[in-house]
This record gives sequence, structure tokens and C-alpha cells, in this order.
Amino acid sequence: MSGTSDEDAIRDLVRTVEEGWNAGSGERFAAPFAEDSDYVIVYGTHAKGRAMIADGHQQIFDTIYAGSNNTFTVEDVRFFRPDVALAHVHHVLRFHQEAGAQEAEARSTWVLTKEDGRWSVAAFQNTAIVPFEGPPGRP
Amino acid sequence: MSGTSDEDAIRDLVRTVEEGWNAGSGERFAAPFAEDSDYVIVYGTHAKGRAMIADGHQQIFDTIYAGSNNTFTVEDVRFFRPDVALAHVHHVLRFHQEAGAQEAEARSTWVLTKEDGRWSVAAFQNTAIVPFEGPPGRP
Repeated sequence: MSGTSDEDAIRDLVRTVEEGWNAGSGERFAAPFAEDSDYVIVYGTHAKGRAMIADGHQQIFDTIYAGSNNTFTVEDVRFFRPDVALAHVHHVLRFHQEAGAQEAEARSTWVLTKEDGRWSVAAFQNTAIVPFEGPPGRP
Repeated sequence: MSGTSDEDAIRDLVRTVEEGWNAGSGERFAAPFAEDSDYVIVYGTHAKGRAMIADGHQQIFDTIYAGSNNTFTVEDVRFFRPDVALAHVHHVLRFHQEAGAQEAEARSTWVLTKEDGRWSVAAFQNTAIVPFEGPPGRP
């Protein structure tokens, strides 16, 4: 149903997004996303399309996450179809605030499709990992 | 590529999940999910499989969200393949705490696949909608 080369391509694509973050480049971060990709950010807002993903990330790379480091770990990759896959990624973000060094964890779902022999991210959603107590959104 | 009946089936399935929440039934809530479905909850934890989704939700329906009401609004449905679709849903959860009535908003990504003529939820992720300020997970 799916060759190792497909999974390798997907893992490479995740690595490109990670490298884009750590280089502070919104354009590089967004390159693996499809032009019409759906991206739900960690605050629950829905960004539509690669250009918006690039611009939005460039803004945070230049401000609150300037100099930050984000480690991406692929937790699993599975194939719904030979050309449609799902991946989960665990993120550890290290950044600086006035209060000092901070660390935040998140988990993301990636939907990837292969069009004309090339994989891209068709949809993505990110969620902060927070203690399971109290209502959602008020950790 | 996809008939209206497919989108109708997907919208019905979302409604079933909503009704399951409002009936306080973990089993009914989880029924539209595939047996091996991936479910990333609003706290970032990854639940695997329909049984875990049912059990986990029954626990919150019986405790912190007893008597709560959750309104699901389908924001969009699009088809990556005739038998693979993506949907976004906006949630407004009303519940009670010691402090009184509370309301929380969230947004979810749904990946749906059609197997043997029947749609189910193959993957799901939920994220609290919180003000865009401060780092993720520390709204």
C-alpha cells in the first residue's frame, strides 16, 4: 500500500518544517504545506493557505519566538490510502520571556496527500499539552 | 468527485457525536469513530481507538461535564479524495462549575474516510480557542 520511500518523504517534510522554525523563516516553515492547506494553530485560530501560514509564522519568529528552538519528534505515520497519510508530531518549544527560559509542549496532527508524485501537508492542527484539570482553554 | 450524499453523511456523523455529548453517552459519542481512530483531545493527549474515546468521554460526562451542553457547528467540508474528507467544527461548550456557569470554545479538525460504502472518523484533533497572547499552553 505504501513504500518506505513515502514514509521517508513525509518524515523529510516534517523535518523541513522544523528547520524552518529554527531558522526563523516563515517561508521555509510553510514550504511543505499545500497552497490551500488548512492550519489550526495552537490558539484555535484557523489559518487558510500556505501564504497565511508563512506570514503568520514570520510574525511570531520575529517577535515572541525570536531565538526560540522547536524540537519535532514524529510519533507515528499511517496511510489511509497509498496517497493519503496521517502523522502525529510531538513538539518541545524552548523560548525566552522576561521571566526567563520557558518550555512548552504541543502535539499536532498532520494530514498529507501525494499529488503528482509529491507529498505535501493538506491539513494540520496543533494543541498545547497541558495538565488534565479544569475546563479546556483554562488550564 | 463527491456527491452531496457524502457530505450529508459526514454532517450526520458530526451531529451524532454532538448528540452523544449532549446525551452524556460515551458510547454514542464514539460510535462514528473508526475502531482504530486517532483522537487528540483538547489537553493534547492522544487517545487511540473507539473504545478509549468512549471510555474517556464517559468519565468526563459523569464528572466535570455532567449536565453540560456542547453545540457543534460544521465550518467546512472538503474532499481530498472521493473517499477521504476533511471537516472543521466549531464547539461552544456550556457547563457548570462551583464558580457558576462557564462557556468554552474550541475548534476541531476531522479526517473522515469511507470504507465499504460507510463514512467514519479516522482522525480527530481538538484545540481550545484562547486569546492570542503569551506562549501556547499558557493562555
